Amino acid sequence: MRTDVNTSYNRLAGQSVERLAALSDGVFAVAMTLLVLDLHGPATEVVRCEYDLWHAVVALSPRLLTYLMSFLTLGIFWVGQQTQLNHLARSDRHLTWIHIAFLFAVTITPFSIMLLAEFIRYRLALLVYWINVLLLGAVLYATWGYTVRARLVKDDIPADAPAAICRRIVIGQALYALGASLCVFNTYLSIGFIVLIQINFAIAPRFRPPSRP
Amino acid sequence: MRTDVNTSYNRLAGQSVERLAALSDGVFAVAMTLLVLDLHGPATEVVRCEYDLWHAVVALSPRLLTYLMSFLTLGIFWVGQQTQLNHLARSDRHLTWIHIAFLFAVTITPFSIMLLAEFIRYRLALLVYWINVLLLGAVLYATWGYTVRARLVKDDIPADAPAAICRRIVIGQALYALGASLCVFNTYLSIGFIVLIQINFAIAPRFRPPSRP
Amino acid sequence: MRTDVNTSYNRLAGQSVERLAALSDGVFAVAMTLLVLDLHGPATEVVRCEYDLWHAVVALSPRLLTYLMSFLTLGIFWVGQQTQLNHLARSDRHLTWIHIAFLFAVTITPFSIMLLAEFIRYRLALLVYWINVLLLGAVLYATWGYTVRARLVKDDIPADAPAAICRRIVIGQALYALGASLCVFNTYLSIGFIVLIQINFAIAPRFRPPSRP
Amino acid sequence: MRTDVNTSYNRLAGQSVERLAALSDGVFAVAMTLLVLDLHGPATEVVRCEYDLWHAVVALSPRLLTYLMSFLTLGIFWVGQQTQLNHLARSDRHLTWIHIAFLFAVTITPFSIMLLAEFIRYRLALLVYWINVLLLGAVLYATWGYTVRARLVKDDIPADAPAAICRRIVIGQALYALGASLCVFNTYLSIGFIVLIQINFAIAPRFRPPSRP
Repeated sequence: MRTDVNTSYNRLAGQSVERLAALSDGVFAVAMTLLVLDLHGPATEVVRCEYDLWHAVVALSPRLLTYLMSFLTLGIFWVGQQTQLNHLARSDRHLTWIHIAFLFAVTITPFSIMLLAEFIRYRLALLVYWINVLLLGAVLYATWGYTVRARLVKDDIPADAPAAICRRIVIGQALYALGASLCVFNTYLSIGFIVLIQINFAIAPRFRPPSRP
Repeated sequence: MRTDVNTSYNRLAGQSVERLAALSDGVFAVAMTLLVLDLHGPATEVVRCEYDLWHAVVALSPRLLTYLMSFLTLGIFWVGQQTQLNHLARSDRHLTWIHIAFLFAVTITPFSIMLLAEFIRYRLALLVYWINVLLLGAVLYATWGYTVRARLVKDDIPADAPAAICRRIVIGQALYALGASLCVFNTYLSIGFIVLIQINFAIAPRFRPPSRP
Repeated sequence: MRTDVNTSYNRLAGQSVERLAALSDGVFAVAMTLLVLDLHGPATEVVRCEYDLWHAVVALSPRLLTYLMSFLTLGIFWVGQQTQLNHLARSDRHLTWIHIAFLFAVTITPFSIMLLAEFIRYRLALLVYWINVLLLGAVLYATWGYTVRARLVKDDIPADAPAAICRRIVIGQALYALGASLCVFNTYLSIGFIVLIQINFAIAPRFRPPSRP
Repeated sequence: MRTDVNTSYNRLAGQSVERLAALSDGVFAVAMTLLVLDLHGPATEVVRCEYDLWHAVVALSPRLLTYLMSFLTLGIFWVGQQTQLNHLARSDRHLTWIHIAFLFAVTITPFSIMLLAEFIRYRLALLVYWINVLLLGAVLYATWGYTVRARLVKDDIPADAPAAICRRIVIGQALYALGASLCVFNTYLSIGFIVLIQINFAIAPRFRPPSRP
C-alpha cells in the first residue's frame, strides 16, 4: 500500500518550474553575497594616515580577486541552470530533487573558494575546489540527461540544442580538469588557467552580434 | 465596529499565492545557505603542509554531513509545501498565517540541526530536532486540512490527491517518530534511520519512469 | 533642461509591481531568518550530561520567544504590504521609493527586537521597538494614501476596501501605542499586551469560515 | 568545432528576463539587509541604567546613518536596473553577463560603505566608495548601450526613453564625481553633497502629480 501512496504523491509533487527557479535564484543570490562578509576593513586602531589605509585596502585585493572568481563560478553555473530551466515544459519530483542536489553543490562553493583563498599554495585546496566544480557540472549534466529522457523539454526547442547543452558541459569540465591537473607544476598556474577559462565563458569573445534586419 | 473593520480587512488580506510562494522560496533559500557559514576552514597558522590541510578538511566532514542532512530535511518540506501551493486556486489570510507559522518552523531548522551536530550523542538534541520536524509536519498537515475545508483547492486536482497528500505526511511523521524513538537504544541508530528515510523520500526508488508514447 | 530629463526618466522608472513585490519578499525573507543567527547552542565544554544540555536549551527559550515576536511583527507587516500591492494596477517611481523606505524599516526590525531581548526591563529598548513599529505603520499608511491619490489602485477593488485598509493601520497603531505606553508601569506588561495584539492579528479569532455553496 | 558549439549554446543561454530580475532582487535584498548585521546593541554588562542605554543607542546613530546611505545607494541603482529590465523584450547571454557584472558591483557596496563609515575622515575611503558608485553607473550605462544596440528593447517604449535613461546616468555620475572631488577640501563636505544628491534622486521633488481625468 505504501508504494501506491508514494507513487500517487510523487506524481503530484514538484511540478512547478517557477518555484524551482525562484528557490534557485534565492540560493544563488545568498551564496553570491555571502563571501562579501569575509571582506573586513582593517581595524581602526591600525590606521593612522591615508597611507596606512591604502596599505590595508591593497592587502584586501587577493580576497577581492577570490570573491570575483567565486562570482564568476556561480555566474557560469547560474546561466547554465537557467538555460536548462528555460527549456522545460514542466517539472516532476525527480527533476526537482536533482536540482536540489545541484543547489547543495552551489551552497558549498563559497566555502571551497574561501579554502582556496586561504591556502592558495596547497594542491589539496585546489582539489577541493575542483571537486566542487566537477560536482556542479556532473549534477547539471545529470539534470539535462533526465530532462531529455523524461521528455520534460518544451516542443519549440531548436533541434541541436540538447546536444549543444551536453557538449558545452563536457568541454567546460574537460578544461577545468586540465586546469586542475596543472597543479602538478604549480597551483598558481592552475588558478590562472581556470580564471582564463571562466572569463572566456563569461565574455564569449567569439560571438558575433546577431545581424537581424 | 472593530469587528466589521477586521472582517472587511481580513477578506482583502493575504490573497496572493504567488507572494506566499516567493516569501517561502526566500526563507528556504536563506535557511538552506545559512549553515554553510558554520563551515570554517582551519586557521592558517595550524596548517604547515598538505597533510595538515588534509587532516583539517577530513575533520570538517561531520559538519558537511550535518549540512547535507539539513539540506535534505529542508528539501523534503520545500517539495511538500510546493506541492500544496501548486494546487491552490487562491489563498486567504488564514492560510497565509498558517504558512507563516510553517516558515517559522523552517527557520528554526538550521538551529536544531546545528544543536544535533554539536551534541550528537545526547538524546535531548535528537528530541529537539524531532520536535522541529514534527512541528513542520503538523503545520503542513494543518495547512492542507484548512486548504481543503476552505475550498481553496484548484478544480483540476486529481480526485485522490488530497488524501494522498495527507497520508504522505502521516506516514512520513510515523517513520520520523519511529526513528526518533530508536534513541532509547542509541542516538546514532536514530540518526542513521532518519537519514535513510530522508534519502528514500528524496530518491523515491520505487518510481518507474513514465511510459508516455 | 535637467528638469525635463528627470521628468522623462521619472515617468519611466519604477513601474513594475512584480519586481517591487519580489524585492520585498527577499528583504522580508532575509530579515525573518537573520535573527536565528543569534540562537547559538551552548559551548560543548559546558555540557557534560543530558541535564546540562536541558538547562542550556531552556536558557535559550527567551531568545526563541523574541524570535517568535520578531516573526509575528514582520509577518503582520508582510501581510499588510502584500494586501496593498495585490490591489495595485501599476506602480510609479514615487510609490517604489515609499516602499523602499518601508523596506528600510523592515530591515531595522531584527535589530530593534534584539535590543529589546537584551534589555527587556529598559523602557528605552521598548521605545526603540515601538518607534520601529510606528515607522512601519506610518510608511504603510503613507503608501496607501499615495496609492489611492495617484489612482494606482485596480478597478475591481471592493468599494469599502481603501477605507478598511486605512482604519486597520490606525487601529493597529493605536493599540501598539497603548501597549507601549503601559511601560510607565512595567515593560513586561507592555510586551505582554503587544504580543496579545499581534497574536490576535495573526489568528483573527472573530473570523467565521466562509459559507459558500 | 568548439566555436560552433559555443555559438549554438550561447544562442540558447541567458534568455530569461524574469530569472535575471529574480536573481537581481535576491542579491539586492541580501545586500540591503547585510549591513544591519553590523548594528550591534551594547554589551549587557556596560548598561546599568536607562541613561547608559540611551548613550549606547545614540552612539549607534552614525552607523544607522551609514546604513541609510547604503540603502539609498542600493535603492537608486535598483530602480535604475528595474527601469531598464522593464523595457526588455528579451535577454541574451551577453546582457545576462553584463548584469551579473552589475550584481558584482552591488554586492561590493555594503563593504565600501562600511569602509567609509569606519574611516569617514580618510579620502581613500571616500575614493573607494566613489569607485564603487562609478562602477555601478558605468556597468548600468554599458547594459543599456548593449540593450539598445542588440535591439532587445520592447517596441512600445516611448521614443525619448533610451536617451533619457542614458542622460540620467551621465548626469548622476557627473554629480557623484563632483561630490567626490569635494574631498579635496573635506570628506564631510563630499558625503553631505552625495547624500543630498541621493535624497534628491529618491524624492524627486520637481515631480508634479499626474493630472489624469
